[in-house]
Amino acid sequence: MAVTVHCESFDVALETGPDMTDVTGALARAVAASGVREGSVHASVVGSTGSLTTIEYEPGAVEDLKDAIRRLAPPDRPYAHEMTWHDGNGHSHVQAALMGPSLVVPVRGGRLRLGTWQQAILINHDNRPRRRTVEVTVIGET
Amino acid sequence: MAVTVHCESFDVALETGPDMTDVTGALARAVAASGVREGSVHASVVGSTGSLTTIEYEPGAVEDLKDAIRRLAPPDRPYAHEMTWHDGNGHSHVQAALMGPSLVVPVRGGRLRLGTWQQAILINHDNRPRRRTVEVTVIGET
Amino acid sequence: MAVTVHCESFDVALETGPDMTDVTGALARAVAASGVREGSVHASVVGSTGSLTTIEYEPGAVEDLKDAIRRLAPPDRPYAHEMTWHDGNGHSHVQAALMGPSLVVPVRGGRLRLGTWQQAILINHDNRPRRRTVEVTVIGET
Repeated sequence: MAVTVHCESFDVALETGPDMTDVTGALARAVAASGVREGSVHASVVGSTGSLTTIEYEPGAVEDLKDAIRRLAPPDRPYAHEMTWHDGNGHSHVQAALMGPSLVVPVRGGRLRLGTWQQAILINHDNRPRRRTVEVTVIGET
Repeated sequence: MAVTVHCESFDVALETGPDMTDVTGALARAVAASGVREGSVHASVVGSTGSLTTIEYEPGAVEDLKDAIRRLAPPDRPYAHEMTWHDGNGHSHVQAALMGPSLVVPVRGGRLRLGTWQQAILINHDNRPRRRTVEVTVIGET
Repeated sequence: MAVTVHCESFDVALETGPDMTDVTGALARAVAASGVREGSVHASVVGSTGSLTTIEYEPGAVEDLKDAIRRLAPPDRPYAHEMTWHDGNGHSHVQAALMGPSLVVPVRGGRLRLGTWQQAILINHDNRPRRRTVEVTVIGET
């Protein structure tokens, strides 16, 4: 069985942060396109005010995660970034750096190996709507 | 030197979260079984109330990390997840999403490359004991 | 196109934590040395009081992230780690475990695929200056 690498990217429009969306389907399509049966998917958001993780993607847990993210770096604190750049998104940079831009998901039997109630999510932390790009790298045996 | 991909999984029983255990030995056994000398191990916990990271695995640091995790998303806050699902684990979902489900460890000379006092740990955040599954993917040169 | 794996490491001296530095250039040099055109870079800090993430590396955002890290696990709280080890770095272990030791960055067209204002950073959380080692694994098609 040969080891192959498949790369693609997709874009998603998100609202003012913290806003998030389920990207499990997009990752699954990349795995299907790759032909990889056993390996890993690496997903990374491009830009310093986005992040990726997993959650049970239902409205309550989504709201709870948004609240927790706002507590990590509240928009209404003073930020040194703001003193220089005046773009109002100091909290966005901090939130995204704490959460991290990358996610690894196993591929087994040609499918993403996640829990039944576990979805991959993309988060926009910026203080305005953003179209975010996710780079997907699938590595494994075909 | 050929590039190969080795996949396996293991299960660990954990107590009510935040509970954690050292999984360095299980990852090291996967590396040994893979025959990989130079590359990476990807570990991912299956399910939306688990996470993986590294720490100095000694009782004090473990207790300190548990305290910090509880502060990130305290069990006694109100959670929107709870309003719908009444399963009492809104905090578990938030904690796990903030920490992230995946970990990458380098493999060098056929061994995990961690610090002397650095161990890979699996965390259960759920509000009940759980048997958690970790999927391990070793990619590298044999 | 052959799939290859390239491994190297580099060291950086950092001040008492939270201190951080831009390691984008070091990762880019590893990619160039690898010959990989399409794939992923995995970076992992060795030791349990370091972490890796991305941020817009400008003095304001750096200061803001340091503040947020100190709020996650303040140095002046009591730590159980301290009761046993008396080395004063209980907060360092907690901060690093919450942030995580590893980072994945896509490689596209032989270059790191990051946002224009997104840099890879290495953080020292320890309570003394530390020379930190980062292990870099580049996997992909040449």
